[in-house]
Amino acid sequence: MDHGSGKPVDPRVLEEMIPYFSEKYGNPASFHKKGFEALEAMNSSRNKIAELINSSADEIIFTSSATEASNLALLGATDRYSKRGEKVVISAVEHISTINIGKELTRRGFKLETCPVCNTGTVDLEELEKIVDDETMLVSIMVANGEIGTIQPLKGAINIAHEHDALFHTDATAAMGQIELDTKELDVDLMSLSSNDMYGPKGMGALFMRDGIRIKPQIIGGGQERGLRSGSENIPGIVGMGKAAEFAKKEMKVDSERLTELRDKLIYGLLEIPESYLNGHPNRRLPNNANIRFSYIEGESLIMSLDEIGIMVSSGSACAAKTLEPSHTLLACGLKHEEAHGSLVFTLGRNNNNQQVEYVVNQLPEVVTRLRAMSPLTPKELK
Amino acid sequence: MDHGSGKPVDPRVLEEMIPYFSEKYGNPASFHKKGFEALEAMNSSRNKIAELINSSADEIIFTSSATEASNLALLGATDRYSKRGEKVVISAVEHISTINIGKELTRRGFKLETCPVCNTGTVDLEELEKIVDDETMLVSIMVANGEIGTIQPLKGAINIAHEHDALFHTDATAAMGQIELDTKELDVDLMSLSSNDMYGPKGMGALFMRDGIRIKPQIIGGGQERGLRSGSENIPGIVGMGKAAEFAKKEMKVDSERLTELRDKLIYGLLEIPESYLNGHPNRRLPNNANIRFSYIEGESLIMSLDEIGIMVSSGSACAAKTLEPSHTLLACGLKHEEAHGSLVFTLGRNNNNQQVEYVVNQLPEVVTRLRAMSPLTPKELK
Repeated sequence: MDHGSGKPVDPRVLEEMIPYFSEKYGNPASFHKKGFEALEAMNSSRNKIAELINSSADEIIFTSSATEASNLALLGATDRYSKRGEKVVISAVEHISTINIGKELTRRGFKLETCPVCNTGTVDLEELEKIVDDETMLVSIMVANGEIGTIQPLKGAINIAHEHDALFHTDATAAMGQIELDTKELDVDLMSLSSNDMYGPKGMGALFMRDGIRIKPQIIGGGQERGLRSGSENIPGIVGMGKAAEFAKKEMKVDSERLTELRDKLIYGLLEIPESYLNGHPNRRLPNNANIRFSYIEGESLIMSLDEIGIMVSSGSACAAKTLEPSHTLLACGLKHEEAHGSLVFTLGRNNNNQQVEYVVNQLPEVVTRLRAMSPLTPKELK
Repeated sequence: MDHGSGKPVDPRVLEEMIPYFSEKYGNPASFHKKGFEALEAMNSSRNKIAELINSSADEIIFTSSATEASNLALLGATDRYSKRGEKVVISAVEHISTINIGKELTRRGFKLETCPVCNTGTVDLEELEKIVDDETMLVSIMVANGEIGTIQPLKGAINIAHEHDALFHTDATAAMGQIELDTKELDVDLMSLSSNDMYGPKGMGALFMRDGIRIKPQIIGGGQERGLRSGSENIPGIVGMGKAAEFAKKEMKVDSERLTELRDKLIYGLLEIPESYLNGHPNRRLPNNANIRFSYIEGESLIMSLDEIGIMVSSGSACAAKTLEPSHTLLACGLKHEEAHGSLVFTLGRNNNNQQVEYVVNQLPEVVTRLRAMSPLTPKELK
């Protein structure tokens, strides 16, 4: 139940990729059969990804991860448009990559402002309205938070940015394959896409860049991806991401309904444990996400105890899981340090079923009780 | 015979990668079994790559390509050390990625100087000695040129750089799996490594960074690779690159001997064609490379005619193959524009055998004669 940290590649996706490793190994820049074959595969994949997010194929730039896509979007746009204004606005619950790119932008002389969220982790649009002004060149707010599950009011945020002629970037990573992404309806300018989050291969991502937007490349070289992202193309990865997008488009609705049901069963089951609370929004949340806080105990010890009985979960964003800092997302929601430390992130996926949810709901109370018994913070009546 | 543009992944490498797509899909940052499994695989791969180049594992930073590694090395080092001096020196026959990064450095205020090469494409060390001075912070010269095959006098170049306390970076891409790379013996500071060039997966590369060197990360985010390169790790790719390095170390000698023999047979066979010439160094060249110039005809039309009879070759560096510019490498060797345009690059590999070389040697004279007959440049006696 830690699909947020890494997902298995869909076996149908892997099957599609296999021939591109050792047989169809051409370079799309080559002027011969193997080259044309690779170029065709790349174009087909680009089309599939474009279809998933309702864009055109030439608005897709392949990268090696969603993190790289966000670097390209945020550093690339500020490099290119820095004359348009000097303020960059992000939300307080962005992924660590956006937070750290924001810090880099302050080092580069930009004025970074962080829009607060309410206690469900939802960006406060009234606050955003106050922060975004005509000096704002760029606003970056994620589609949904992978740690607490909260889905952001993206359309409203984009309208606010565009009223002030600011560019809008969104990180769609956690939402991939779970909720619909329509770049035209949203009227978004830049969107970071992840492959593995929709059961495609790791080491792949893409940036959607609306036609007409200009950015400065961040990896310089042979001029691949229309000069915006150099380096020989990872054709098997590109093919895999395309196939994953095809399946995501087709199967998202059924998958999400199934996961929502499992998720709610998990949430309601775990909230039976005394002094347990749901983090994030009660219903505007990702179909696969349950983030539960258990008072008086540490997430780390919970994770290790659960791993021993075959339950794999996380204590926060996988990308920052090894720091001992409490989650910036939970702190932004108003939790205290010790409350943030006692939270568990369950991210369901294709590997999970009803029986597993029941197992977790049955096992967790005992584990929590045992750990609380050892904790000096636990009040007597709970021991 | 276009292995320089793309190589098939070694089936033994692919077999090693497969379990990491859909079964062992953990994130090395996770605190549970699947996470530990991924971390272990990554560490093992890092060790194998370190062994190949005689370095320690913590000197290896995984990237998505050699191009990205060169960006990280050159932009990362200049970002970090720019106070040490303002001159950056590259050779005239560097890969297009290094050339373009060099252009970016001039835009950032560095003084870029290009060291000339002699007509075999070999860096002129006497010239280098004159160019590198105490204001030089960084020198970048490749191990070997993938287009003309010439192997550079790296040790001499590194000594010159270090005499002036300049950092030395080398792009090892074209040499991977063909000639020995010993970072300790070379005393090199930074080295870009490619995976696919040694029959590992595409979309993978690495940067060797000598212990003690500091660079600024170029992809910012969750702090993977000790903060130097963020983005969730591409575990199957990492595992594949490690396995490829293991085989490269074991099999390089035998492979290179076999390729050298095939290469020489190809070169001597093709030089029988009137007015054909070998580009690059006659013997200090990569085991797999033959670059032959045929007067009076265009490389592009040669490539297309050869593709029709099942022979796949290139007219230059694959990464820049789609530009109509003549190869900067050949121009640096002193060729005229029209001479550069008539050159063919043969890069042999595991897919090639004696019979194929014979086929090419038998077929090419006819194709050259036919194209020369159509060319207005061809003198009468050759028609």
